[in-house]
Amino acid sequence: MQIEVLPSTGSPRIPYLEDRLVIVIDVLRATSTIVTALANGCQAIIPVLTAEEALETRLTLPGSLLGGERDSLIIEGFDLGNSPFDYVPEKVGGRRVIMTTTNGTRAIRDSIAAPMIWMASFINMQSIILAVLREFENKNRLKGIVVFCAGTEERFDLPDTLCAGMFVDALGPDVLLNDLGEAARILYRSSKNHLADKIRDSVHGRKLISLGFERDLVYCSTPNMLPIVPVVQNGEIVWLTGE
Amino acid sequence: MQIEVLPSTGSPRIPYLEDRLVIVIDVLRATSTIVTALANGCQAIIPVLTAEEALETRLTLPGSLLGGERDSLIIEGFDLGNSPFDYVPEKVGGRRVIMTTTNGTRAIRDSIAAPMIWMASFINMQSIILAVLREFENKNRLKGIVVFCAGTEERFDLPDTLCAGMFVDALGPDVLLNDLGEAARILYRSSKNHLADKIRDSVHGRKLISLGFERDLVYCSTPNMLPIVPVVQNGEIVWLTGE
Repeated sequence: MQIEVLPSTGSPRIPYLEDRLVIVIDVLRATSTIVTALANGCQAIIPVLTAEEALETRLTLPGSLLGGERDSLIIEGFDLGNSPFDYVPEKVGGRRVIMTTTNGTRAIRDSIAAPMIWMASFINMQSIILAVLREFENKNRLKGIVVFCAGTEERFDLPDTLCAGMFVDALGPDVLLNDLGEAARILYRSSKNHLADKIRDSVHGRKLISLGFERDLVYCSTPNMLPIVPVVQNGEIVWLTGE
Repeated sequence: MQIEVLPSTGSPRIPYLEDRLVIVIDVLRATSTIVTALANGCQAIIPVLTAEEALETRLTLPGSLLGGERDSLIIEGFDLGNSPFDYVPEKVGGRRVIMTTTNGTRAIRDSIAAPMIWMASFINMQSIILAVLREFENKNRLKGIVVFCAGTEERFDLPDTLCAGMFVDALGPDVLLNDLGEAARILYRSSKNHLADKIRDSVHGRKLISLGFERDLVYCSTPNMLPIVPVVQNGEIVWLTGE
């Protein structure tokens, strides 16, 4: 299986996606939060690029909530920030959330040419791996996988790369990797016994701690808590059928 | 000391360089070849972006040689390719080389805003580290270091990142790193006992082997062979004074 890991939004070259499964990773915190929202009964997440687009979209979807962040903080006038702890059942159960984040929702929109787009994080990694093995078991429809790390403001992000490395490592030795895929696997293998420390010490981790979100870091660093594969369908992020 | 490692040419964000030392790394093969050329008596290397620019530049510098590659092979009509073994004393001794490569010379030109630009590779790493320690010993003139990995066609390149990791690791625990700097250090520490294998297995390494350049890989993977710090002065790459 061919797997290409990309470092961030703003990657100079987004490869040909038409015959690839794209797995978007934004550990801190968009994909971790999207997984949590769906687990807590959120009907769907609609990724948009700007706060203005979110407000416009809500006009067509009355009753939906607005979620997301700028500079890691809740956007003025929005119902929810980008913390997974904002997306509790009492708030998101049975409702749509229109969401915009600095890196995560942009990575999702950059992947739109792909036939399948899934959201991965540490907290749902086991389900992602099982779903990938099922997807590639019989079918030759897809040529490979692009793991798209959202990154931090167009920069290489260690938490996302470690998460990509956990994914690649779980698929065994027979995968064909680009250099960043091989690097991610080495980084994960050498860090897997102290993932939370590595994530806390990252540039993005230190920033979130300074803003009082240390609890989010611990949560987002904990593998395999939720059996959910979020997938983009008709512009909405929903629970993958069969999960 | 603050060190920021950038992954490749085409990096979405080149940081503020005016008060930084930039260290350009293109292990396969531009910076390894530049170090070798200077060690073999080459008077200066003039980095240019295109073959056309190389030909124009030679009009103003009669007697200089043309060197470089496209798609890893010597450019038609040029005197030298991008293999360090092309840059022997009999050819480059006492002469200028006008050089253009796909990634390396572009990284050099992208760094031009910096007050100091040095060229690093495995083969001259020890000299680079000693020169950096001297440079930052007394002076506060420079705010930090940007390690600019040339990468491979705008992609993350494992050989360059391992070389950046060797540099960062040698400066000890008290350096402030961005996420890619931390990743490079982890990658180097976990790979330093089999550097040549990692470089051979990289995307760029496999390509060079397929083209018959395996000897170049072995050479470019061998640390600390040449006591030279190439530096950009007035648009030319020369031996750092005092080295």
